[in-house]
Amino acid sequence: MNRHTLPHTATASATASASTLYVGVEDMVRLVQRVGLPACIAGVAERIEAAFLRWNDFDKSARLACHSADGVIELMPIADAERFTFKYVNGHPKNTRAGLPTVMAFGVLADVATGVPRLLSELTLTTAIRTAAMSATAARHLARPGSRVMALIGNGAQSEFQAIAFRDLVGIRELRLFDTDPAATAKLAANLAANFAGQGLSVTVCTSIREAVQGADIVTTVTADKTNATILTPDLIAPGMHLNAVGGDCPGKTELHADVLRCGPVFVEYAPQSRIEGDVQQMPADFPVTEFWQVLAGQAPGRTSAEQVTVFDSVGFALEDYAALCFVHDTARALGLGREIDLVPRAADPKDLFGLLRAPVEALRIAA
Amino acid sequence: MNRHTLPHTATASATASASTLYVGVEDMVRLVQRVGLPACIAGVAERIEAAFLRWNDFDKSARLACHSADGVIELMPIADAERFTFKYVNGHPKNTRAGLPTVMAFGVLADVATGVPRLLSELTLTTAIRTAAMSATAARHLARPGSRVMALIGNGAQSEFQAIAFRDLVGIRELRLFDTDPAATAKLAANLAANFAGQGLSVTVCTSIREAVQGADIVTTVTADKTNATILTPDLIAPGMHLNAVGGDCPGKTELHADVLRCGPVFVEYAPQSRIEGDVQQMPADFPVTEFWQVLAGQAPGRTSAEQVTVFDSVGFALEDYAALCFVHDTARALGLGREIDLVPRAADPKDLFGLLRAPVEALRIAA
Repeated sequence: MNRHTLPHTATASATASASTLYVGVEDMVRLVQRVGLPACIAGVAERIEAAFLRWNDFDKSARLACHSADGVIELMPIADAERFTFKYVNGHPKNTRAGLPTVMAFGVLADVATGVPRLLSELTLTTAIRTAAMSATAARHLARPGSRVMALIGNGAQSEFQAIAFRDLVGIRELRLFDTDPAATAKLAANLAANFAGQGLSVTVCTSIREAVQGADIVTTVTADKTNATILTPDLIAPGMHLNAVGGDCPGKTELHADVLRCGPVFVEYAPQSRIEGDVQQMPADFPVTEFWQVLAGQAPGRTSAEQVTVFDSVGFALEDYAALCFVHDTARALGLGREIDLVPRAADPKDLFGLLRAPVEALRIAA
Repeated sequence: MNRHTLPHTATASATASASTLYVGVEDMVRLVQRVGLPACIAGVAERIEAAFLRWNDFDKSARLACHSADGVIELMPIADAERFTFKYVNGHPKNTRAGLPTVMAFGVLADVATGVPRLLSELTLTTAIRTAAMSATAARHLARPGSRVMALIGNGAQSEFQAIAFRDLVGIRELRLFDTDPAATAKLAANLAANFAGQGLSVTVCTSIREAVQGADIVTTVTADKTNATILTPDLIAPGMHLNAVGGDCPGKTELHADVLRCGPVFVEYAPQSRIEGDVQQMPADFPVTEFWQVLAGQAPGRTSAEQVTVFDSVGFALEDYAALCFVHDTARALGLGREIDLVPRAADPKDLFGLLRAPVEALRIAA
């Protein structure tokens, strides 16, 4: 990461207590229940768009990935002059067989001026929210205006979030569902029926990818297998489609046939990371891609005609987690959710770390 | 980081619950009080030595650093086939003016096979313990046998830990203290007198670096200023000295005059990181250094004569935190310290993340 200089206002004295707010899964569920899932997605989308418009303020790097036979563990840091954030996230497709989520995540927001970790938050739920918010934000700027029908291929943990994001932020009114596991599709359809019935989203269960993409304005792929899959092949692509490719996000894990990437302009979050992890990992190093922030900032064209096929080859970038962590921090503080934890010492004399060991432990306790 | 293959034993099914043990500052103080600081340092030193002897089992990378005007925030990941660990640590020398520690840290130990974070721990206290354990382990193998006198330059937060580690693991019986801040030296002397009086360590307060290093077998520098300092110059170095240079650990933060590094062989933890961060950052890229694990493993010579000057140019490497996190995990589990937190979901149906949002929050609660 590069050096950057702090504005003079962000001094240590402004934040002279080392307290960390903890928002675990229970408090995050409470937060989403209080605010409402659609409002959370919209709130995070707003922060993502604002952050991407400040692209050059951020010290960026491709995430650090530790690959093993069954999955990957990643650290995703990013910082501007005031806040440093990072996310820990794993991806282990076989976890579901053991009753564990495929993806689990948590993250921290810290003050750049002092290093104090201000927020430690669950990010498993939040990652689904921010990924959906990112997908819908990109589609809002890249899909054909008036897009109403979306095929949703892959109906696992993230699918409900994608559905709601595209309903609210893009105007999707009809969903066409497909998953190789019919139980996953049934779960998605049931969740949508139980929670959003009559709220502007009709659902069709399809028995093949071909059937699902029929007549779709937008195709979202959000599958989990760690393999070079070809969920979408060129024969399935119709003029004017926008492809939201979410699941190809790791070396050796792709969803699109290489020729699909040649159907129209490909947009990515952060090119150095996407060329390693995205569907474009299949393409030569000089294959043209456009970073989405450039479209937002008016520095590069997005879609240039109604017939064009546009591809958002999304992998998930640290800036989206930065936006999500800021949203969680501010919302939890406003609603009084979460609790202070003693992740770092609040030493009376910071040069006397040893003195901590002689303190009665009660003196270290943070009031509940 | 590179790929590695998991042994077949480390399967997801062996660890099918996503629970995370939290050891905050209060519980860490309790742990150290129960075990005793000297035993904690010895226990971590033992794990560090064992881990360094397995050097080639680890997927290593230089830490990721985010520099700002007033300090640095770093992430330090490492993994073997079974465990992934990382530490978050800052370094902000000006923090003490605002009543905050210069260095604050926390870390996580996770299962490579599933990505489940098993332990979230404070690492501010623990970093002081592991740094002292690393320093003493290196000195045990590099200093002149029979070393009894150590100069301790820099008497801040880490100094008590260095003192005890060298007393117990190296056999130091006389400490000669110096700090530019006499209050820091007075604090260190008072802490040692109050807690270890009559336990084999005599202390002399010195008024200059020159006075402190007079007759010292070992010189430990553990200063905090982020500057290219020359705490030690060649005229201060006597034949046979071992230099334990702890404080030069960041680009632009050094303690040794370049010519001191030419006084004898220089040992480092992990060369790619040390050449960026250590005192050897001052030297050409081909300046010879020996990785300490090679000495431990008998693959490279350590000290070859009683007159030789040896330099351990320590920066702090992720493998030391791996060892410390394993020690904390096992010790806290054995003593019943710490508590389970809901950092990641324990979902009944891992494909139904959305279903979490409809659960009564009480169902998500982890029993205290």
